[in-house]
Amino acid sequence: MIILGLDPSLSCTGWGVVRVEGSRIGHVANGQVKTDPGAPIAARLAHLVTALDGVIAKHAPDRAAAEEVFVNKNPQSTLKLAQARGAVLAACGAAGLEVREHAARLVKKAVVGTGGADKRQVQAMLKILLPGAEVAGPDAADALAVAIADAHLGGR
Amino acid sequence: MIILGLDPSLSCTGWGVVRVEGSRIGHVANGQVKTDPGAPIAARLAHLVTALDGVIAKHAPDRAAAEEVFVNKNPQSTLKLAQARGAVLAACGAAGLEVREHAARLVKKAVVGTGGADKRQVQAMLKILLPGAEVAGPDAADALAVAIADAHLGGR
Repeated sequence: MIILGLDPSLSCTGWGVVRVEGSRIGHVANGQVKTDPGAPIAARLAHLVTALDGVIAKHAPDRAAAEEVFVNKNPQSTLKLAQARGAVLAACGAAGLEVREHAARLVKKAVVGTGGADKRQVQAMLKILLPGAEVAGPDAADALAVAIADAHLGGR
Repeated sequence: MIILGLDPSLSCTGWGVVRVEGSRIGHVANGQVKTDPGAPIAARLAHLVTALDGVIAKHAPDRAAAEEVFVNKNPQSTLKLAQARGAVLAACGAAGLEVREHAARLVKKAVVGTGGADKRQVQAMLKILLPGAEVAGPDAADALAVAIADAHLGGR
């Protein structure tokens, strides 16, 4: 079972692919897709989709996962985030992938053992859980975390 | 000049295509893309993209236009709307289309002559401005209105 974790955002979308065999989880690949802040939004969203299409074609995930969206108090931030998320989910849907959504607390709990863990703790646990993985950055780390959480949360 | 107007939403995205020749605006086509409320969101978004890809391929617009997004007081509604919008804008971006955004008041002003016009007035003016056009529904009407407004607002 190959799982694609996603951390969508307009400026930088993180992705992480893990392989699950029984109770073992192994790192496959991860990365971050940045978009040009000076480009029109339609072009930026299209860039995210093109990059994700490439990741999906290369790694052929069986399913995808993302954190449940965080509704920001700043409506403009929520709007940007949700538009990026919509483009990324559409790319998954076009590839026939289900995208399972997990609450941020459940992701942290699955990776670190406590829902109140901070980003630093999550990144430290990733080094232990996925030894040797070179993580492209904080958004790729979040994407790997949601992929691991999805693996733990199993076939529900 | 062919303009594609868009009224994105997850449940039903309206689209309308007009041809602009000098000061004349003519109707080309319009429609509404509905998605299955029982389907996973990624599949619904992918369905919007596939349908828009078809519209763009068939009518080869020179540019696209949409109303500036309305940030709803209900964050879940804003989220759904913005995700649909993101998928639709990404489809435009992938086709190399610029998507110009216009405030709702400007769209009403361009179509009816007053920014405070209601939907009924907009729809009545569409019948006058685009004689003979069979409008697929209220979302298609909104999409045609934004296309007309974009034509009026010209090359800015």
